[in-house]
Amino acid sequence: METSTFPIVLVGAGNLATNLGCALSRAGFPILQVYSRSQESASALAGRLGCEATTNPEKLTADAELYIVALKDSALETLLPEMLRGREERFWVHTAGSIPLNIWERVPGVKRYGVLYPMQTFSKARLVDFRSIPILLEANAPAQMNLLKEVASTLSDNVREVSSRQRRAIHMAAVFACNFTNHCYALAEKLLAAEGLPFEILLPLIDETARKVHTLPPKEAQTGPAIRYDENVIQKHLDALSAEPKMQTLYRLLSQSIHEAAREKLKGKK
Amino acid sequence: METSTFPIVLVGAGNLATNLGCALSRAGFPILQVYSRSQESASALAGRLGCEATTNPEKLTADAELYIVALKDSALETLLPEMLRGREERFWVHTAGSIPLNIWERVPGVKRYGVLYPMQTFSKARLVDFRSIPILLEANAPAQMNLLKEVASTLSDNVREVSSRQRRAIHMAAVFACNFTNHCYALAEKLLAAEGLPFEILLPLIDETARKVHTLPPKEAQTGPAIRYDENVIQKHLDALSAEPKMQTLYRLLSQSIHEAAREKLKGKK
Repeated sequence: METSTFPIVLVGAGNLATNLGCALSRAGFPILQVYSRSQESASALAGRLGCEATTNPEKLTADAELYIVALKDSALETLLPEMLRGREERFWVHTAGSIPLNIWERVPGVKRYGVLYPMQTFSKARLVDFRSIPILLEANAPAQMNLLKEVASTLSDNVREVSSRQRRAIHMAAVFACNFTNHCYALAEKLLAAEGLPFEILLPLIDETARKVHTLPPKEAQTGPAIRYDENVIQKHLDALSAEPKMQTLYRLLSQSIHEAAREKLKGKK
Repeated sequence: METSTFPIVLVGAGNLATNLGCALSRAGFPILQVYSRSQESASALAGRLGCEATTNPEKLTADAELYIVALKDSALETLLPEMLRGREERFWVHTAGSIPLNIWERVPGVKRYGVLYPMQTFSKARLVDFRSIPILLEANAPAQMNLLKEVASTLSDNVREVSSRQRRAIHMAAVFACNFTNHCYALAEKLLAAEGLPFEILLPLIDETARKVHTLPPKEAQTGPAIRYDENVIQKHLDALSAEPKMQTLYRLLSQSIHEAAREKLKGKK
C-alpha cells in the first residue's frame, strides 16, 4: 500500500484535528470519517474534508488503516475502550503532548500504536503551514515508527523520535513558550485598553522578542526593569496594578523569577 | 539650524543608549559626547560613535543642543541636578517608559524638556532597525514637540505623542509582552535542557505565537490545556514541576489567569 493512499479516520474535530486533517488531506491522504462528540464540530470538519461525520464512537468505520485521535486528554481516556472495540487490528495514534505511549496498552489486543504530536498552536480559524512544525513521534515497534515517519514527512521537514518523558517536557515547554506567552500578550492588551491604546502598538516589540531568540539564548536576550533590578520602576508598576491584584501577583513573581535567573547566570560565570 | 546637524549628547551607554546612539549617528546627527558611570561602557559606545567619553557629569559639554538621558531610572533621579547645572538652557529629554515628564521640573531654570521613549527590547549585541519601532513623545511645549517629532521621524515611521500616564501603561504592557514573554522562553529552555533537548525545537512555535496576534486578538489566539481547562494535563504538569516549586507556582497562577480571562470572555458574549 502506498503511503499516499493510506485511509485515515480522525477522532476529534478541534483546533488540532482541523489543522492536521486539512494538512493530511492536502498531502493526498483520504480521510474517511471524522468523529466528534459535538455534531456541529464533526460536521464542520467533515464538510471541509468531504467525508462522513459521526458523533457515535460505535459507528466509527473499521475500514481505515490509521486512526488519529486528537481529543482533550480526559475525553481520550474515557472513550478509549469504546473506540477501539472491534478495531483492535488497526493502527492507533494519539496526538497529545502529555499522554504516554503506553496508554494504548489499557485495551487488550491493540498491537500497533503510537503518538504523532505536532508541536504548534492551532486554531480552526487559521490553518498553519506544517512544513517547519516539529512533529514528534513515538511508536510501539520499528514498523509502526517507519510508517509514522512516512506520514509525518509528507507534512513536515522537522520530524523526530522522542520518548514519552521527553514529549511531556516539550509539551510543558510549549505551554510556557506559547500559551503563557500569549496570555502575557492578552494581559498587555488589557493594560493598553484601559488607557485607550491599541494592541497593535506592541507588535514590533512582540516580533523582535520572538526574533531575538533565534540568535541569542533567552537568558542573554532578557531586558527590562526586572533584569536591571530597577526597583523604582518595579515599585511604580506594582502600585499602578493595585486595582488588579492577580496581575500584580504575576508581575511580582515573574520579576522575582527573572531576577533569580540572572543571579544564577552570574554565579555560573564566576 | 537643520535637524540633521543637531548636536547631541548621550547620557548613558547601556542597551538603549547604544542602539539609539548608533541609529541617530547613522541618521546624520553628530554625537558630541557619551557619559556613563562606567569608563568601560562610556569608552565602548564613544568608540562606536567616534566621540568623546566621560564618567564625570560635571564634564558634560555645554555645546550640544539636545541631551538624551538613557539611564536606569534611579540613576537619572540621582544625577539630575548635577547633570543640568550650567546646562539649563539646553533641551533635555529622557527615554524612560515610567518616568513622568514633570521630573524635569525638579531642577529650576530648565525650560525645554521632553521624553523620547523608543519601545523596543534593546541589547548591545544586536542593533535593531528603528524604522518600525514606536517612538513615543512628550514635551513641555509645541516647539519642543515639533523638534522631537523631527528627530524621531528621521529614525522611525511610527512616532506618536502620548501622555505620561499612557506611556507608563505602554511600558507596563511592554514588560508583559516582552520581558515576561522572554522569561517564559527561558523557563521553557530550562525544561528542555533537563531532558537533553535543544531550545531551537521551540522556534516555530514561538514564531507562530507572535505572528498569530497580528491577525487574531490574543484572547482569540489562546490555546493549550489552561484555556481548554484540561485538568488532566494541568495536574500532570504541576506534578512534573514538583522539584521546581517557583515554576510550579507560576504555572498554576498563569493557568488560573488564562482560565479566568476565558470565563470573562464567555460572560461578555452572553
